[in-house]
Amino acid sequence: MLTVCVAPADPPLIVESVRAAGGEVVGDPRRAEALVWTDSRPEGVRDYLTPSVRWVQLPSAGVERWTREGLVDSTRVWCSAAGAYAPQVAEHALALLLAGVHRLPAAARSRTWQRDQPGTLRGSTVAVVGAGGIGRAVIPALRALGANVLAVNRSGEPVEGAAATVPFDGLAAVWPRADHVILAAPATPETYRMVGRDELRALGPHAWLVNVARGELVDTDALLAALRAGEIGGAALDVTDPEPLPDGHGLWTEPNALITSHSANPQVRLTESLAERVRENVARYLRGEPLLGRIDPARGY
Amino acid sequence: MLTVCVAPADPPLIVESVRAAGGEVVGDPRRAEALVWTDSRPEGVRDYLTPSVRWVQLPSAGVERWTREGLVDSTRVWCSAAGAYAPQVAEHALALLLAGVHRLPAAARSRTWQRDQPGTLRGSTVAVVGAGGIGRAVIPALRALGANVLAVNRSGEPVEGAAATVPFDGLAAVWPRADHVILAAPATPETYRMVGRDELRALGPHAWLVNVARGELVDTDALLAALRAGEIGGAALDVTDPEPLPDGHGLWTEPNALITSHSANPQVRLTESLAERVRENVARYLRGEPLLGRIDPARGY
Repeated sequence: MLTVCVAPADPPLIVESVRAAGGEVVGDPRRAEALVWTDSRPEGVRDYLTPSVRWVQLPSAGVERWTREGLVDSTRVWCSAAGAYAPQVAEHALALLLAGVHRLPAAARSRTWQRDQPGTLRGSTVAVVGAGGIGRAVIPALRALGANVLAVNRSGEPVEGAAATVPFDGLAAVWPRADHVILAAPATPETYRMVGRDELRALGPHAWLVNVARGELVDTDALLAALRAGEIGGAALDVTDPEPLPDGHGLWTEPNALITSHSANPQVRLTESLAERVRENVARYLRGEPLLGRIDPARGY
Repeated sequence: MLTVCVAPADPPLIVESVRAAGGEVVGDPRRAEALVWTDSRPEGVRDYLTPSVRWVQLPSAGVERWTREGLVDSTRVWCSAAGAYAPQVAEHALALLLAGVHRLPAAARSRTWQRDQPGTLRGSTVAVVGAGGIGRAVIPALRALGANVLAVNRSGEPVEGAAATVPFDGLAAVWPRADHVILAAPATPETYRMVGRDELRALGPHAWLVNVARGELVDTDALLAALRAGEIGGAALDVTDPEPLPDGHGLWTEPNALITSHSANPQVRLTESLAERVRENVARYLRGEPLLGRIDPARGY
């Protein structure tokens, strides 16, 4: 039997998924072996980290807020929800990329008939930077549209469906080869502002940059300057730095920028997806199998 | 040997593709066995329809302008370019559908951070009405995104990749079953205003209607009324009726409408795609094989 505390809120869908997988839901964290944390913020979690809690399931794919506070250590097992929201976010990434290439931001803002000359993904090379759950989930649709995928991951180990896979330290060679880029990498010191002035120039004036990962991966000032100078085709961003993007920021009025206000992974589907993941991980825990999304405290994701 | 007249313009790409396939390009239509017509309008084509011309290759996928003028008859073989532009248009259709479902029109028009609740194609049912080149080309990408496809064609003969195929005369049952619709059917008397008030109501308030075929397939007044009443989720239209959509038309300012001004098949790629088709059909003609896009004069497409 596994005793699970679901906190700080206990949505019925999550509670049911714990039970469906064979766990017992308890209200008192001192009686719990596992904690399912349902808030996207870490505030208050320390009160629930009792000595009995051996495993913590977090609700977010990105867990930098927990790692920065030093919560994620080796004294217990921590799991992110990495991958749980991947298909939804991958679909949003594709929507953003297609919108850019097919000039939909300009069309949406137009109030007059004006034939445009959209591009095509067919035959193009799309770099997918960060081939985790989201990155891998977007590849089949890109392939179905006739695009070639250049995957970038930590190891350089081949990613299924990618024409080539490049390790992170070979990234400099990716920008000039890619027609477009989808950023789907975790926020780490290594990826902080990985896209700056030089990378944008290397991408070139037809390239669309899509970011569905974290705003901090992109140097926003450099991006705005590149958009204004026409050095890049456009940018479709679900995440920004700063975030929320303040009113009056130049990106709001750039013709080739599209901002979706961190909506790739909408609240309406969050609980559904988390419940699925909780059921799967509780079942794995009870069977002694490896948990999905287990965080390596040394890497921070 | 096949003598081919390329008119009224003779773009080098087309001329080369005739030669590459083994044809001889001639300037005088009285010496030509085949005519490749390179203008999207039929004006002037009669001057080239000499008794020697046995085969006419038209540059458009939709040929109603030629059929209406009574040009397409059984005295010679006529071919449309149906299918030649299909992958490009299919990609545009997917871009429009994803944009609608992911609420990109609203995002493009916003100048302030406002988290939205996009939908998803995953697990949804998308009706693809008209399973010709464009319809068939969009199916693999829809499948890769986890959508189920309901194909609608003339015969009801199963379409590859579709969960079900329905014949045109069973269309009434399609609207309530579909979460979204992509119109990719030819303009014929049968399809004229096939989407009106009742069909839109049957689709329901979350459905996006995508039209990449011909504006005449949709009753525009009924669509505008349905959008205003919230009876449909939204409409993403590459084609409209009237077309061009006049300035000041209500569709330009509907929050859930997106218009791309007949840009799905951009000029920049037209000649490339037509050249490919001409090369293929000249080669088939010389080998005595069935030509692609052969028009049935009785059906008009």
